[in-house]
Amino acid sequence: MAQPTIKLNSGHDMPQVGFGLWKVDKETCADTVYNAIKTGYRLFDGACDYGNEKQAGEGVARAIKDGLVKREDLFLVSKLWNSFHDGERVEPICKKQLEDCGIDYFDLYLIHFPVALRYVDPSVRYPPEWSYDGKGDIQLSNATIQETWTAMEGLVGKGYAKSIGISNFQGSLILDLLRYAKIRPATLQIEHHPYLVQETLLKLAAAEGIAVTAYSSFGPQSFVELEWQKAKDCPILFEHPTVVEIAKKHNKTTAQVLLRWATQRGLAVIPKSNNQGRLQQNLEVTNFDLDQSEVDAVSGFDRGLRFNNPTDYLGTLHIFA
Amino acid sequence: MAQPTIKLNSGHDMPQVGFGLWKVDKETCADTVYNAIKTGYRLFDGACDYGNEKQAGEGVARAIKDGLVKREDLFLVSKLWNSFHDGERVEPICKKQLEDCGIDYFDLYLIHFPVALRYVDPSVRYPPEWSYDGKGDIQLSNATIQETWTAMEGLVGKGYAKSIGISNFQGSLILDLLRYAKIRPATLQIEHHPYLVQETLLKLAAAEGIAVTAYSSFGPQSFVELEWQKAKDCPILFEHPTVVEIAKKHNKTTAQVLLRWATQRGLAVIPKSNNQGRLQQNLEVTNFDLDQSEVDAVSGFDRGLRFNNPTDYLGTLHIFA
Repeated sequence: MAQPTIKLNSGHDMPQVGFGLWKVDKETCADTVYNAIKTGYRLFDGACDYGNEKQAGEGVARAIKDGLVKREDLFLVSKLWNSFHDGERVEPICKKQLEDCGIDYFDLYLIHFPVALRYVDPSVRYPPEWSYDGKGDIQLSNATIQETWTAMEGLVGKGYAKSIGISNFQGSLILDLLRYAKIRPATLQIEHHPYLVQETLLKLAAAEGIAVTAYSSFGPQSFVELEWQKAKDCPILFEHPTVVEIAKKHNKTTAQVLLRWATQRGLAVIPKSNNQGRLQQNLEVTNFDLDQSEVDAVSGFDRGLRFNNPTDYLGTLHIFA
Repeated sequence: MAQPTIKLNSGHDMPQVGFGLWKVDKETCADTVYNAIKTGYRLFDGACDYGNEKQAGEGVARAIKDGLVKREDLFLVSKLWNSFHDGERVEPICKKQLEDCGIDYFDLYLIHFPVALRYVDPSVRYPPEWSYDGKGDIQLSNATIQETWTAMEGLVGKGYAKSIGISNFQGSLILDLLRYAKIRPATLQIEHHPYLVQETLLKLAAAEGIAVTAYSSFGPQSFVELEWQKAKDCPILFEHPTVVEIAKKHNKTTAQVLLRWATQRGLAVIPKSNNQGRLQQNLEVTNFDLDQSEVDAVSGFDRGLRFNNPTDYLGTLHIFA
């Protein structure tokens, strides 16, 4: 089945449905990726911070070796971690990530967060996560977003990334980036689910020709696994009566309804699943249509509820203030 | 009565209660300012965009001439309009504004919005407002916030502004500015009222040593005059049962309760009034204390409701996305 794609402002086509590698265990990651490719996934959304790039790369390599796909059939995404924002750190770390993945270019490489942390050498700790010492001490870098973005642009020039983009950016910061960008961000990846509908940000992205990828499409679900109280306290979207009703009507799963709600709004989605049935189902979320009234009903759940917020889990780095 | 002040990171003291000049008619502005000084106001919050700097300056000049105050007793605030963000435009327009006001320095000069618009020469239209042609055509400039801030820093060096700050900035953009700022913003001016409590932004400002000034402390009230439907549809804070009850208990007006709620949270406030009684009352909002439970009750009105949003009144410039 040919999967629908989104034409990026870089000229490249991005699959609208992909597989997200966040929280995929190292141990199972290679098999998971291999199996997802077999199931039909072509886009894999990874990151330095997910700690599984080598394993994801093994899955990719095996699939290519077995003739399931060619490299050019895949759309491999990764992200620049916060501690590599200093201009001179961007290319070396990107090259390390490519090497880990066993490939020679990313289809898309994103600034993971608009947060610049002090450099931690990969030989000291990798992935470095948020704190400088690995024990909670947050130390900043003064690398501006402009410095980092300029270095990101250099990756395109050298062929290490076909497209570049941003993640977890707010409106006024995006507008500032657009003032100096020689290469405009191709995509913006954001937390997006019925409790965080992000209407204005989607409006901005549409007006500026930036494609949007939704992460955490199932809302609290992604964070319950992390034992976050805020997520546990929140009604599960899979069991929301409106979602259940819409799913019944269309003879789909509630997960499919949530993903269709996002794709019908024009977003790309990157769910993950360890279950073969759901893996298959999550891919089939562009071949049926919700009524506009159903889309609107789900959008009506909006309560500006954000889970992936450093303010909550670090008590600082207030990028969503 | 000595008014409480806030010590800015620039070393200067800023009165915690001031008079806001937004929507003060040209015709009455000089008298209003003169009278407010007589009543005890020392801080006046103006802007190029308010269109009344000459008249405000006349009021100031008359008060000084009559011996009510000296220049150094006053704290005069103004703002850089969006169409003067290009680095080379900042000093000339600041000097024009100083000339209009009849003074030789501002105590505080703010970037009004994180929006860079194409330059409009003051001889063509002044104040230029949002559109390039005065008829709704929004044209952007590529001046980055860094370029504008660097020029703002130059004003301090030349003595045109004692302190500089920002207004209507979001968290991630402030964090980016702090990476390159040689002079940190002394203040952040934001819309702030019980329907828009801005908890995280206040946390950021406190952590970074930036004083916060609240505008539109009465919420929808400021916008009802503009006939904005969103404001008309919103319950008036002056009549909110909780506010009324707190006011009764403390034998204060509801306006005083709303201003005390803000000042007790550590913010500066800049109400305006054309009524002498209220002018006096608004100044007396630091000499009584709400119980913490009362502060919390008012904070509990929060609904993330923003009135001054270009997305709503221009349909573009999504700085609050």
